[in-house]
Amino acid sequence: MSTFGQYFRVTTYGESHGRSVGCIVDGVPPGLQLTEADVQPQMTRRRPGQSALTTPRDEKDRVAIESGTENGITLGSPIALRVLNEDQRPKDYGGGGKNIDAFPRPSHADWTYLEKYGVKSSSGGGRSSARETIGRVAASAVAEKYLRVAHGVEIVAFTSSVGSEFLFPPTRQYPTAANNPAFLELIDTITRDKVDEFLPVRCPDKAVCKKMEEVIAEYRDKQDSIGGVVTCVIRNCPSGLGEPCFDKLEATLAHAMLSIPATKGFEIGSGFGGCEMPGSVHNDPFVKAPTVTPAEAHGAGASETRASRRPRLTTKTNNSGGIQGGITNGAHIYFNVGFKPPATIGQAQQTTGYDETEGTLEAKGRHDPCVIPRAVPIVEAMAALVVMDALMAQSARQSARSLLPMGEMTIPVGESHSKLMNGSQ
Amino acid sequence: MSTFGQYFRVTTYGESHGRSVGCIVDGVPPGLQLTEADVQPQMTRRRPGQSALTTPRDEKDRVAIESGTENGITLGSPIALRVLNEDQRPKDYGGGGKNIDAFPRPSHADWTYLEKYGVKSSSGGGRSSARETIGRVAASAVAEKYLRVAHGVEIVAFTSSVGSEFLFPPTRQYPTAANNPAFLELIDTITRDKVDEFLPVRCPDKAVCKKMEEVIAEYRDKQDSIGGVVTCVIRNCPSGLGEPCFDKLEATLAHAMLSIPATKGFEIGSGFGGCEMPGSVHNDPFVKAPTVTPAEAHGAGASETRASRRPRLTTKTNNSGGIQGGITNGAHIYFNVGFKPPATIGQAQQTTGYDETEGTLEAKGRHDPCVIPRAVPIVEAMAALVVMDALMAQSARQSARSLLPMGEMTIPVGESHSKLMNGSQ
Amino acid sequence: MSTFGQYFRVTTYGESHGRSVGCIVDGVPPGLQLTEADVQPQMTRRRPGQSALTTPRDEKDRVAIESGTENGITLGSPIALRVLNEDQRPKDYGGGGKNIDAFPRPSHADWTYLEKYGVKSSSGGGRSSARETIGRVAASAVAEKYLRVAHGVEIVAFTSSVGSEFLFPPTRQYPTAANNPAFLELIDTITRDKVDEFLPVRCPDKAVCKKMEEVIAEYRDKQDSIGGVVTCVIRNCPSGLGEPCFDKLEATLAHAMLSIPATKGFEIGSGFGGCEMPGSVHNDPFVKAPTVTPAEAHGAGASETRASRRPRLTTKTNNSGGIQGGITNGAHIYFNVGFKPPATIGQAQQTTGYDETEGTLEAKGRHDPCVIPRAVPIVEAMAALVVMDALMAQSARQSARSLLPMGEMTIPVGESHSKLMNGSQ
Amino acid sequence: MSTFGQYFRVTTYGESHGRSVGCIVDGVPPGLQLTEADVQPQMTRRRPGQSALTTPRDEKDRVAIESGTENGITLGSPIALRVLNEDQRPKDYGGGGKNIDAFPRPSHADWTYLEKYGVKSSSGGGRSSARETIGRVAASAVAEKYLRVAHGVEIVAFTSSVGSEFLFPPTRQYPTAANNPAFLELIDTITRDKVDEFLPVRCPDKAVCKKMEEVIAEYRDKQDSIGGVVTCVIRNCPSGLGEPCFDKLEATLAHAMLSIPATKGFEIGSGFGGCEMPGSVHNDPFVKAPTVTPAEAHGAGASETRASRRPRLTTKTNNSGGIQGGITNGAHIYFNVGFKPPATIGQAQQTTGYDETEGTLEAKGRHDPCVIPRAVPIVEAMAALVVMDALMAQSARQSARSLLPMGEMTIPVGESHSKLMNGSQ
Repeated sequence: MSTFGQYFRVTTYGESHGRSVGCIVDGVPPGLQLTEADVQPQMTRRRPGQSALTTPRDEKDRVAIESGTENGITLGSPIALRVLNEDQRPKDYGGGGKNIDAFPRPSHADWTYLEKYGVKSSSGGGRSSARETIGRVAASAVAEKYLRVAHGVEIVAFTSSVGSEFLFPPTRQYPTAANNPAFLELIDTITRDKVDEFLPVRCPDKAVCKKMEEVIAEYRDKQDSIGGVVTCVIRNCPSGLGEPCFDKLEATLAHAMLSIPATKGFEIGSGFGGCEMPGSVHNDPFVKAPTVTPAEAHGAGASETRASRRPRLTTKTNNSGGIQGGITNGAHIYFNVGFKPPATIGQAQQTTGYDETEGTLEAKGRHDPCVIPRAVPIVEAMAALVVMDALMAQSARQSARSLLPMGEMTIPVGESHSKLMNGSQ
Repeated sequence: MSTFGQYFRVTTYGESHGRSVGCIVDGVPPGLQLTEADVQPQMTRRRPGQSALTTPRDEKDRVAIESGTENGITLGSPIALRVLNEDQRPKDYGGGGKNIDAFPRPSHADWTYLEKYGVKSSSGGGRSSARETIGRVAASAVAEKYLRVAHGVEIVAFTSSVGSEFLFPPTRQYPTAANNPAFLELIDTITRDKVDEFLPVRCPDKAVCKKMEEVIAEYRDKQDSIGGVVTCVIRNCPSGLGEPCFDKLEATLAHAMLSIPATKGFEIGSGFGGCEMPGSVHNDPFVKAPTVTPAEAHGAGASETRASRRPRLTTKTNNSGGIQGGITNGAHIYFNVGFKPPATIGQAQQTTGYDETEGTLEAKGRHDPCVIPRAVPIVEAMAALVVMDALMAQSARQSARSLLPMGEMTIPVGESHSKLMNGSQ
Repeated sequence: MSTFGQYFRVTTYGESHGRSVGCIVDGVPPGLQLTEADVQPQMTRRRPGQSALTTPRDEKDRVAIESGTENGITLGSPIALRVLNEDQRPKDYGGGGKNIDAFPRPSHADWTYLEKYGVKSSSGGGRSSARETIGRVAASAVAEKYLRVAHGVEIVAFTSSVGSEFLFPPTRQYPTAANNPAFLELIDTITRDKVDEFLPVRCPDKAVCKKMEEVIAEYRDKQDSIGGVVTCVIRNCPSGLGEPCFDKLEATLAHAMLSIPATKGFEIGSGFGGCEMPGSVHNDPFVKAPTVTPAEAHGAGASETRASRRPRLTTKTNNSGGIQGGITNGAHIYFNVGFKPPATIGQAQQTTGYDETEGTLEAKGRHDPCVIPRAVPIVEAMAALVVMDALMAQSARQSARSLLPMGEMTIPVGESHSKLMNGSQ
Repeated sequence: MSTFGQYFRVTTYGESHGRSVGCIVDGVPPGLQLTEADVQPQMTRRRPGQSALTTPRDEKDRVAIESGTENGITLGSPIALRVLNEDQRPKDYGGGGKNIDAFPRPSHADWTYLEKYGVKSSSGGGRSSARETIGRVAASAVAEKYLRVAHGVEIVAFTSSVGSEFLFPPTRQYPTAANNPAFLELIDTITRDKVDEFLPVRCPDKAVCKKMEEVIAEYRDKQDSIGGVVTCVIRNCPSGLGEPCFDKLEATLAHAMLSIPATKGFEIGSGFGGCEMPGSVHNDPFVKAPTVTPAEAHGAGASETRASRRPRLTTKTNNSGGIQGGITNGAHIYFNVGFKPPATIGQAQQTTGYDETEGTLEAKGRHDPCVIPRAVPIVEAMAALVVMDALMAQSARQSARSLLPMGEMTIPVGESHSKLMNGSQ
């Protein structure tokens, strides 16, 4: 199904060649100030045609709010968001050429869509197009606006590797970036504006960014493609989010990230590197938390952070990536998402056709040598949807709990645990 | 919520110290032969106390079918499965000691559960216990029985790394196991029986297994712990499974795997290694599929595989890991799941208590130096739940589609695509 | 949430005064022929402005398919349907007048929306407008097309009472229409075309229709309003639909019907009248079913009904309304839905304002004296959504079951029960 | 599926003849005091064998809490509730006799279960048994405890008709009980204890109860059965519950009620009678609400009602039944549920067998001549599940909204609307 989330529920629609693409966002808190101006920026950030490195398909991707607001205020009813498909050239898309009808593109969705649906559409795997992500990004802008206003949440993603060029290559000293002070400092302060200073690659380091740009250009010139990794950090996320058992926060994050086209892997916190570490080093000891919130430390006003009661304890290291037992602890959440090289390449490929005879596929037309830079806002978008849904699940619980009388083993919502500790002595 | 799946829906319950743990499985196809004997084997495989390397907690873990069958046949109604908690020692569990009440265990769920629920239970993060996975494993046995009988599906997991000991370490020639012929041969033939010849570690290579055993023993003796990676292969999975957009099969697999306690990462097919490869190498060209199914090649009878219409095409390489555009193509599905070192260790840890004062936590009692061997059947269990749910989603669609008249651009359910090709010429 | 259905999932959006109203339909079987021409007829039937008896708001309500089809064939991906709001006059809507801002309209949703959302919109209860039903009717056209093509399902609703004028008033002989041969004959043959011969009231009896028209005109002239009842029949519904326990077919029908604005009650089969009958009379004995299907009897071709395997038994009477134990038995499903008199009336009403002072509300503007005639296609729409969802749930089960070997107590999908009977002797 | 609710999610399991019946309740607020003593009373009220009028099947129906609590406090994790099946006599159940295997019982679920599942179980429609409702009643006790403690909600059902004996028969003056002052007074004060003074019939009027008892006895003696109606009132329900569009509160109530075995109809507020009334009479004008809550007026302490902020306005009449536009307004919610005569009767019935030959079915064994008295606690149970789920949905929304800055058109959570009125002048 094309729905994500239980409480903050996003349903998307649209292929590249229909009238429009978009989504319905249900469960939006009423009373939130929201206009198209809140939605457009991320739409524009994910838009193709931003540089010679990305596909030249020229779309305006102007979003319209069809419902759910009045006078710039959300009503609590479903918000429909819609973007016209202005540049429809079916036969030309995704490779085109005289033999696109005869061959399923290798590692693309043409073949599996046909196996699944039994219908051959002009664009092959219609919903597997990157254009499908427009609805997600539009929906996430609503979530992000709420998370920022009510909790001061900040979500920032950036390119951390392209091919074998890494922003933080594993070293003997720092087998995983989780232990690298430079990485920890970066995720403490990085902003989207900073990331976009490094367009078109979006890797926030001048030298590494340069190298990555060269790698992408090299593959582009060879009519080939290359993959890479996007890293994302979520700051000021309230503690207590994530549902034990099946819907641990890292599980829904992994679900969200692997649902982005072309993804191959997901790591939370120390990731696969952490699996090689001993527990005595990997464990994150507790320390008393600072009394100012990270948002306040970065200058956010009180009105923006009043909801952000921060926990009394935090962790000294953060191999956990802000999540323990599937539940947020208030520390930075960070994770990696791996993207494969795009399947559509200009080079001729030996393969086999729908009619089971071998042959050569030559894909003409526009295509991206590397999806990483454009994937950055999509990763942020899915992160926002995950946090928003988990936040509303926890809000419902906290709100319900706040009406119960306190007992010996329970602590009031929003209060210190020391009460409990006294009670249990 | 504690529910997994939309069509084949599993709801689990139970903490370590209640009366029982278990689950309700809803959406079970009626008419399936099923008794406790089908469920018990995997329960026993995940049971602790199998060797000196795992926790000595001695439980029988005998499963009882409470409902949903009669005369050994499923009725189509919900199947409740239940396992008694026979060995309840709250104060002793998960570390124990005189100061377990004063300190949240580092990198454990004690603290985040308290942040989330505001209730302090005797076992800290009650549902974050490994015992919670019993319900999942029990439920998966129902799914596995169906998948095996109706489609010949085989799911086998094994230990592929412990600490820095790898079964297939990345080399210059084979940066990812996906390209390594030895790996591809292994996943073509490996069985659970074979894996269990390598108990207690479950790494199907004598020499590597020995080294891993030594590594685990070393950390056990230091009262420390170590992580590792489990690899899993799904064979004979029908093509066409997985829902485009949010519920791509790799996305639900990632969700399922990251919902297992102590997991840190997930990779499908070529994984993060594949993100360093160029598209011209990473793409999987199509080739004509063999006319016998893998199951038949391995001797499975016709009655077991009649549902397994295999696609006419398959791929020459399998960097995709059997999934393209989020949809299965009929090739082997394989993936890695990373597990961190267990958080509960015997060593003293400097940390901070609930009352915000620093101190030393010394965890007494039983605990596992490495969860990898016991994680093997749990990974298999979650894989079965994912495939079963996706299969029923696709069955509903195929079944609905089969009643429609065929048009020019559509192909009949279960027939070759060549019809379509002729039709469109 | 604004979503209906689990397998065939409809999400609607839109207020009267936004850009558009519409829906996303997910889970549509691929390969179905579908264009706007399939959707428009019911849109037009529910449209206001059809006669002097209904609201003169003049809307074209032209529906556009935004996604999910190509060349007039469904792709299996979500279908977005959209209707522009052409006639937006917020201040005038739903009563208007100088004091609409000061008084919540009695028995309308103004007050409860404010209690719920805390936001005051120009139209009061934005989503409680009849215009919200456009998305439902549009979505149902997709379901209806499939049900008709694949199973020959026919769904027809009509007006059965307005105020105290009844098409089948309860009599001593026939306390419920379920026992009245004239009623049973009517639901056996009634068509939408026939119903529309009795516009604007849609009660398929010339004399009764005339009286109803007079009743409505009388209340219209008094600036008052009146309620009534819509009866609906579903013919050729496959047997076996409906999920035992919570999602019995009558339960989901009741849910669907009571979700239509202004509804007050729901009765299945013999309804409340049947609750006064003894079991010996109310029970429906089984009889051998005719070998031709109802669809065939009415001239439907084989291609339209090949899926409609009819059960070997049917019932002599049909007090059950085609549903037993929550599951369809293949007989006609029929039910009543009660609608209250519209809350918005032209008469002055003594009431109390938002500021808690008493006063008089005088609602100006356009409003409907009776919703019954326009409710007819909406009742049909919701019935189609219910049957479609239940059909796909059962399809998934049957399809899964068909791959299992048969045992002594099981019967093959699509075969006679006599096999079972022989087996158990 | 066997799951009810989205936020407070109940999944039930169990047939009459398995080991046990029960449920898992997910989404329970943590910190609620809960032991078996809170659950047992309603279990006992629904238990058969309470008088000569109900089935003599003697079951203890002792419920056990399997998980989710510790020291009598809910942990926030799933609560499994389980009741043993102590009295299993398959062949004897539901009619028995030598020919139960040959004939599907008329108007029972035997036939439709076979059509649906293709498996013949010893008890015919296994999950259609009244015993299936045990899980619902057990789960509802958790919801009721919360609703009572946190909001002072009171839910009371009673028998309002048996056959043609009515507690409030429609009269010329009061065509629907909604207008009858005696009815309105009754629902203002009736308690479960009061209802149980009228055992076994549970109609709270001595004379009418006597007549009903005679009617039931008469049908029992004739080996026949009879139906009737249960009326239910929900007091102190917070305003703002119910989701516009598909999940209006009356829609989910109707769903819940029609999911109870043997139900035929549902009416909210004035019901079908209200559909005959003019809008000018049916509309409920607003009046200023009393400053003491109904709960306080009846003596409930402050601690039990602190959450129950009551709206500033209420309605003078209550034809709406406490729900307007699908959303609660804080007034009493009341509704009727119609139950058919039980299908299993002792009389011989002419019918047709599985083998399609006519014959006579004589059902031996225990059965209920009238389900109404036992249905009373089941109706209450389903009402509690509906309100609890809607409450948590609204809590999530209110809680999310409370963190947003207020604008001109929005009102603070929990404050008067007069602020808004001042603001908009």
